[in-house]
Amino acid sequence: MTASALPDETITGYDVWHCALPVTGRRDHGIGTVAGTVEVIILRLTGESGLAGFGEASPWTVFTGTPEASFAALERYFRPLVLGRKVSERDAIMGEAARAVVHCTEAKAALDTALLDLAGKCAGKPAWSFLGEKCRESIPLSCSIASPDFDADRALLERLQADGVRIVKLKGGFRDHAFDMERIAYIRDRYPAMAIRLDYNQGLSREQALRQVPEAAGYGLDFIEQPVAAGDHRTMAELRTMIDVPLLADESVFGPEDIQRAIAEGWCDGVSVKIMKAGSLSRAQQVARMAAGAGLSAYGGDMFETGLAHLAGTHMIAATPEITLGCEFYQARYFLAEDLLAEPFPFSNGAIPVPDGPGLGIDPDMEKVQGYAVNGPGNGPGARAA
Amino acid sequence: MTASALPDETITGYDVWHCALPVTGRRDHGIGTVAGTVEVIILRLTGESGLAGFGEASPWTVFTGTPEASFAALERYFRPLVLGRKVSERDAIMGEAARAVVHCTEAKAALDTALLDLAGKCAGKPAWSFLGEKCRESIPLSCSIASPDFDADRALLERLQADGVRIVKLKGGFRDHAFDMERIAYIRDRYPAMAIRLDYNQGLSREQALRQVPEAAGYGLDFIEQPVAAGDHRTMAELRTMIDVPLLADESVFGPEDIQRAIAEGWCDGVSVKIMKAGSLSRAQQVARMAAGAGLSAYGGDMFETGLAHLAGTHMIAATPEITLGCEFYQARYFLAEDLLAEPFPFSNGAIPVPDGPGLGIDPDMEKVQGYAVNGPGNGPGARAA
Repeated sequence: MTASALPDETITGYDVWHCALPVTGRRDHGIGTVAGTVEVIILRLTGESGLAGFGEASPWTVFTGTPEASFAALERYFRPLVLGRKVSERDAIMGEAARAVVHCTEAKAALDTALLDLAGKCAGKPAWSFLGEKCRESIPLSCSIASPDFDADRALLERLQADGVRIVKLKGGFRDHAFDMERIAYIRDRYPAMAIRLDYNQGLSREQALRQVPEAAGYGLDFIEQPVAAGDHRTMAELRTMIDVPLLADESVFGPEDIQRAIAEGWCDGVSVKIMKAGSLSRAQQVARMAAGAGLSAYGGDMFETGLAHLAGTHMIAATPEITLGCEFYQARYFLAEDLLAEPFPFSNGAIPVPDGPGLGIDPDMEKVQGYAVNGPGNGPGARAA
Repeated sequence: MTASALPDETITGYDVWHCALPVTGRRDHGIGTVAGTVEVIILRLTGESGLAGFGEASPWTVFTGTPEASFAALERYFRPLVLGRKVSERDAIMGEAARAVVHCTEAKAALDTALLDLAGKCAGKPAWSFLGEKCRESIPLSCSIASPDFDADRALLERLQADGVRIVKLKGGFRDHAFDMERIAYIRDRYPAMAIRLDYNQGLSREQALRQVPEAAGYGLDFIEQPVAAGDHRTMAELRTMIDVPLLADESVFGPEDIQRAIAEGWCDGVSVKIMKAGSLSRAQQVARMAAGAGLSAYGGDMFETGLAHLAGTHMIAATPEITLGCEFYQARYFLAEDLLAEPFPFSNGAIPVPDGPGLGIDPDMEKVQGYAVNGPGNGPGARAA
């Protein structure tokens, strides 16, 4: 793995916005619902040369933390660790940030993203070049089927089919088993070329899982994800002995420490890798590598995020051959009413092409960041184009 | 265990303050330093009768979370789960709060405390009466020796001796091994009646711990606490085989889920029980009970908190016979420049007498809460007596 050296640019500017972006519909998951708006935190690091690097924290209150916690981590606690430092001190800065505030892995991922974006712009290299070699030109996209209104998802499935998307993930466990099985059968029968994944987001009790997961496994699925509570490793391990379909962990595995335990204790066949859980692009890579070293598979997951966080995940996966099951960077195209990026998030024939421009490749539109801001410089709420 | 029934009082008022209180000195710990101010979040629930219940969240950024995260959990996310509900719905409310926001155990503890304080005031019963029977009249106090300036701690030791305090906990692992051993020897030689505990707060690497902990164990200590990182269970287990002194877990054990694992895997002899880690008084009790069921010991720890949180811990321990190693509710008396309570936090001859008045027994002084507020109603920063 040969990674480019980070440039010596000194960081002289540091700005943080808390943005609330309208979404087009409602998403139900085992652990909670997202509707109305998605809230993200945007970090801008400015270098002495005037170049800027951007990063996004995409928190989910029931999963990783609140947007307020991410905002405070970045605005108050990380700022003094970053201002005046050099981009080349990334490892030291990220280590200090990890120790300064517990949790807030989304804020740490935002900081790492902004450091790599600024590094890339200064060096004229893509962000992935600091993480290793490019192992792929594009990443197959999986889109989630998560509306409580299946008519809305039927329309989405038509759109996905037309767009060349060939992987869908059904969100289950938020209504009842019959609704889950009915939707799987519908997709399988109507879109036979579509690979189907089933994700319960901790939505089942142990007893429900022991009954429902084996039946679902009979439908020819790619994998089944996180049927039970994050801490219920015993049921995960039991389910593995009952089904032939790979059982993946999401909420159970945030960082390297968790995948280490999952491997040692044998309660999953694969893992959802997310920079918002791992706390940096490198820690996300490490999760995938540790998983692959033990024969476990991995896909690149997302939170409720904009194209900016999608870009960070894309660059991470571009340099991580161990992530073999595609990515889920669908929010910018299929869920947000309007993305924050100045150009559309890359998409081509059902996949995400890896950007090769400097840094992440696309900047956020600052007028949109200001316009959607509920807190931050320019004094949101909502002073569009301050 | 017979606990009183909770009253039917409806909650009609809900206010949250973020306060910053000056402290008299500096405290060094393995994982971080506290100096200048301590930041806590105060919750006031008002019942339909006009009575008010108070609770405190005492976060530590490097350990449980930031004050901003606790404030947001209480101000934005828990408020709709509480307003209009009855105090008697405590279990349901606490369950919903646990699921609504990850982490933020300090905010959850504040909510539980305020519910029990209000319940007690409505019913004319002490808060402990809702948690079981009173098992003790007072709790022996342990005070921490944590100043980087040992001269300051020499003066504190004289004061503790005069006050009848007979337990001290030395904070180690923040400078060097010689400094730790020198201070232990000083206390042991000069105050032979003083029980000594040693707490590293994760301050040692594995290699340091394997060398230093066995030597420290030769000094006749009560116990040694959390020498290594919270997740380093392997080194904890190894150290247990090397020393005759009980090895206690603090940062490694937050709630029942963690003590369950500690018992199953055998990496500690006892546990520090804190409502700010467990997320409620009942969950803290449960940790102590599970520990005792497996032959492990427990003491009642604190965070950087005011007398209000001390009171919550005191009521919890009053009804928890499994906590046999005393408590550490020393901040109000020995560390804060001024406490928030309207009367001095109870203390008598080296111990904390259990209050028997309605609720927690003492209210915060609202003029002080307003005066130390940096955020909350009355529009801090710092509008004393708004």
